Amino acid sequence: MSKRETYTVNVAGLTRHFPLFEVAPGVRIAIFNMLGDTYVVKASAAALAERLKDTPADVLVTAEAKSIPLIYEMSALMGLPYVVLRKTYKSYMGDVINAETVSITTGKSQILYLDEKDQALIRGRQVIVVDDVISTGSTLEGMKKVVNAAGGKITQVAAVFTEGDADWSHVVALGNLPVFVS
Amino acid sequence: MSKRETYTVNVAGLTRHFPLFEVAPGVRIAIFNMLGDTYVVKASAAALAERLKDTPADVLVTAEAKSIPLIYEMSALMGLPYVVLRKTYKSYMGDVINAETVSITTGKSQILYLDEKDQALIRGRQVIVVDDVISTGSTLEGMKKVVNAAGGKITQVAAVFTEGDADWSHVVALGNLPVFVS
Repeated sequence: MSKRETYTVNVAGLTRHFPLFEVAPGVRIAIFNMLGDTYVVKASAAALAERLKDTPADVLVTAEAKSIPLIYEMSALMGLPYVVLRKTYKSYMGDVINAETVSITTGKSQILYLDEKDQALIRGRQVIVVDDVISTGSTLEGMKKVVNAAGGKITQVAAVFTEGDADWSHVVALGNLPVFVS
Repeated sequence: MSKRETYTVNVAGLTRHFPLFEVAPGVRIAIFNMLGDTYVVKASAAALAERLKDTPADVLVTAEAKSIPLIYEMSALMGLPYVVLRKTYKSYMGDVINAETVSITTGKSQILYLDEKDQALIRGRQVIVVDDVISTGSTLEGMKKVVNAAGGKITQVAAVFTEGDADWSHVVALGNLPVFVS
């Protein structure tokens, strides 16, 4: 099958066609990239903010880069600050807290860094962890490690999509993406 | 002087204290990081959108990551799509167009990648290039190279801040940051 084959999905009331991409021999996933899709970000952020309105929270946390517009829009709607964990250390970040994770879309291990300036936003606070897609859960584990190491308490995990047939009942999500195995 | 010394700035009507950071012996810059500051993003995007309202444009283009919330908010206000040039190649990006640039905050050369899916948004279109800070102009040069190689025509460059005393009269900006030389 060609890489251009797509999977049609409803995202917060909007219809999108995600390209299918082979991540391992015979295993394909649907690529959801919110970067550049302002309509999907607006709609998804509103739907997630509504579902999270009774969740105790002081701050939202995600990892760069595709979910940055989502967490920004959720921050504005929910009146909460947000923190972006970075994937490249830059010296202006100072004394960071970090954790290692493995990306399903690159297959490489990566490190998540919490900027020194953002640590006070998490220490002793209630945290909602946000991502665009939660798949293997490895980025999620990395984010949890960083939040815990920074002294935050995770009250909820939220994503636009979960992926695959693991038990995702603990995640507030707008939908589930299948993993295509041939 | 300590790294924690700050420089006080007016950003689109809001007051902020940017930490000063030494980037070369005796040379310090004020670090402006919009990631996580929803108030500054809202205010800056509105001010830039107003100044750009008569500029012919089909699409906004930036480079990841700090300016992603800004370009997203400008996209929503201006009713234009936006494209984020990435700094790491991921295989789902397909047949990318790229260009090399050097970051002032890391001192390292980096490559900007235009995702295959975004190329049609730029080819033959009028483009406003957006950044948080335009400093050495090297990231700007990288973005220009990518847009030109993709067949886009740059009609304006816009930033929240320019930095240093170069001639920035061709940039639509909300302010200028000094470079501190001791």
